[in-house]
Amino acid sequence: MRDLNAIGRIGIGDHGSVTRLVFSIKELRSRQVLIHLMRQAGLKIQVDAIGNIFGRLDGADPKAPALLAGSHLDTVIHGGKYDGPVGVIGALEAVRTIRENKIPLRAPLEVVCFIGEESSRFGFSTLGSSLVAGEVQPKDLTNAVDAQGTKLADVLSSLGISARNLFRLARDPKSMKAYLELHIEQGPILEAKAKRIGLVTSIAAPSRFKVIFAGRADHSGTTPMEMRKDALVAAAQLIEYVEKICRKFSSMEKGRVVGTVGAMKIEPGVINAVPGRAELSIDIRSTSAPAKDKVAHLVKQRGAAIARDRGIAIEVLNIRAEDPVPLDKRLLRVTRQLCDEKAIDYEIMPSGAGHDAMQMAKITPAGMIFIPSRRGISHNPLEWTDPDDIALGAQLLMETMIRVANEPI
Amino acid sequence: MRDLNAIGRIGIGDHGSVTRLVFSIKELRSRQVLIHLMRQAGLKIQVDAIGNIFGRLDGADPKAPALLAGSHLDTVIHGGKYDGPVGVIGALEAVRTIRENKIPLRAPLEVVCFIGEESSRFGFSTLGSSLVAGEVQPKDLTNAVDAQGTKLADVLSSLGISARNLFRLARDPKSMKAYLELHIEQGPILEAKAKRIGLVTSIAAPSRFKVIFAGRADHSGTTPMEMRKDALVAAAQLIEYVEKICRKFSSMEKGRVVGTVGAMKIEPGVINAVPGRAELSIDIRSTSAPAKDKVAHLVKQRGAAIARDRGIAIEVLNIRAEDPVPLDKRLLRVTRQLCDEKAIDYEIMPSGAGHDAMQMAKITPAGMIFIPSRRGISHNPLEWTDPDDIALGAQLLMETMIRVANEPI
Repeated sequence: MRDLNAIGRIGIGDHGSVTRLVFSIKELRSRQVLIHLMRQAGLKIQVDAIGNIFGRLDGADPKAPALLAGSHLDTVIHGGKYDGPVGVIGALEAVRTIRENKIPLRAPLEVVCFIGEESSRFGFSTLGSSLVAGEVQPKDLTNAVDAQGTKLADVLSSLGISARNLFRLARDPKSMKAYLELHIEQGPILEAKAKRIGLVTSIAAPSRFKVIFAGRADHSGTTPMEMRKDALVAAAQLIEYVEKICRKFSSMEKGRVVGTVGAMKIEPGVINAVPGRAELSIDIRSTSAPAKDKVAHLVKQRGAAIARDRGIAIEVLNIRAEDPVPLDKRLLRVTRQLCDEKAIDYEIMPSGAGHDAMQMAKITPAGMIFIPSRRGISHNPLEWTDPDDIALGAQLLMETMIRVANEPI
Repeated sequence: MRDLNAIGRIGIGDHGSVTRLVFSIKELRSRQVLIHLMRQAGLKIQVDAIGNIFGRLDGADPKAPALLAGSHLDTVIHGGKYDGPVGVIGALEAVRTIRENKIPLRAPLEVVCFIGEESSRFGFSTLGSSLVAGEVQPKDLTNAVDAQGTKLADVLSSLGISARNLFRLARDPKSMKAYLELHIEQGPILEAKAKRIGLVTSIAAPSRFKVIFAGRADHSGTTPMEMRKDALVAAAQLIEYVEKICRKFSSMEKGRVVGTVGAMKIEPGVINAVPGRAELSIDIRSTSAPAKDKVAHLVKQRGAAIARDRGIAIEVLNIRAEDPVPLDKRLLRVTRQLCDEKAIDYEIMPSGAGHDAMQMAKITPAGMIFIPSRRGISHNPLEWTDPDDIALGAQLLMETMIRVANEPI
């Protein structure tokens, strides 16, 4: 908790919010503190070209594939202090405890801090783990620009990071035995079910797209109702439909689909004009790719029907469509066994949010342990997890690391 | 047309848009040009403390109450060149023609340019005519701030205008015989009915209010549909209802109600968060006060019901509620007679938009003449009215002025 709070003070702002955007001074400082803590813990530190940090504790067989455990330290704007750091500091504490107690290990352990998990600055999530997983295309990086207009490519070169080297970061799967990540749930399920641990089966993937209705801006006083081409009313109909169709597909059997219109822009956007243009940003997620694709398709279809009925234009811009990522069943069995042995009440559940584990799962067996988020809140200064739950999560992470490092999985 | 175009070039911007916000350099220049034109036309000029301009041509009886005609020169941001100037330059041209042709007049004529008719800068519409009508309260002015944070009070004092004097601008009704205003329709009705002249019966008044739904911001991936308190979906339901209920009340008999959600803000407003807050700006207008009030009431009632059903909070902030303003029936009879005599095809219609005539009607008989707006567009660089229609409107204005100045109304 002391280390977690030390990290949490870096970038602290109004109402106890934390802002450590990737490659900001605050985020760089948090990584520097982590390196310091890792060094104190006696770990061998490697920082790769983009800034991912690996702190290694050798096992009995230093050539055996390493068991990685970690998460990220960067945050959203005005976020909380648990999303990310809990997994990094949790893994560090686990390794420290293993070392202090001289628990014998066959495989090496690596505490990992991935860079840029949040998309808040450059619209690009899981940057560091994507590079390690060999999932990034050069063009993805060159297009990224932050809200101040600063290009990711310029940030990298000002930090002395050569974009050419980044594509060599992909890690040899043979060097890894597994990846484990402790993370706050960021949702309300554990709290609602009064469970202290969530064992994650899979990570839901988003389909994100924009729907733009283009009608006609008119004077709000002089244009009779029947002569309007109001883009906002069309948008309102689609917003309602997104909720309706996602509720239909919200059961676990139907793929636990969630759908959100989270952002929207209207033009001209003044009280005395009929909106001529409405742009909706839609996010559909599910742990089932067919369910997600089906719902996304239905939403686009309904958008087209609304536009047709109203005689206005519609444009759909796909932002990204990813596949849900199943996590490793054998790792889940290990954590489940440990919970049963220790009489920990757990919930087997999917993750609605994306995590670095999603990328790591592509190159090594990956597992995740969730701990409850109070009121399900995250990405917010009100984000809070009980210290006892953090301790329990870190304890379970440690037990899992010991077992996975010493036994074949 | 030459003078209209000269004014239209002041503040010209992208795509031929015109921006002359009240008390901006551009708007001051346009008034300076008008004073020059009035002087050339031989009018006696008076500028009052706030900047309203009166250019007077004496009649046979200089002590008789004056017939005023005019409009405004300020514009919205990126507006057009006809909304306002057509009425000022139209009145000037009428007076010039009367003078050139030595048409005898009993009453004096005054060409008027009211200041600040548009609310675009300070959120305060018909500033100049409200002062002349004695309708402004000191507190209305002290609270007004523009988008740059500049206070109206500071702008006034930097221009050497003492706020204390403004409340003395109210004009003695005995000094006026009537007020006439030529204006573009800013709506699609004349074009749709292929009429070149609109004779205005009354000016619809808006009820404006904000509805704020406060639910709970949640992570869009981790919050199941059934656990959400999505403020945007609530807002979407109300947006649809505004359209539906206004369509029910849109016939002339039912008060020709129009209702618009023109502006909206959502928070946090990012693609990966369920909106926790949605703020709608709603504008309901009608030429019938009971119809307008009824619809506004129904909308607020429905908002409350939606919030109750969803277990979220709602707040309603009234911005303003004005009464519709009937224009003078005797003036309408004069313009109607003139149209009949000259075989001009006219439409008797209400005005959906507000105008300076709305304020002047409170202290003197007021009348308005509309000319068509192409595609109903205004407050936009695409605003356009055929020069022949402008000429016809100015001609009718002049004939009306002559008749009203010489006959009892």
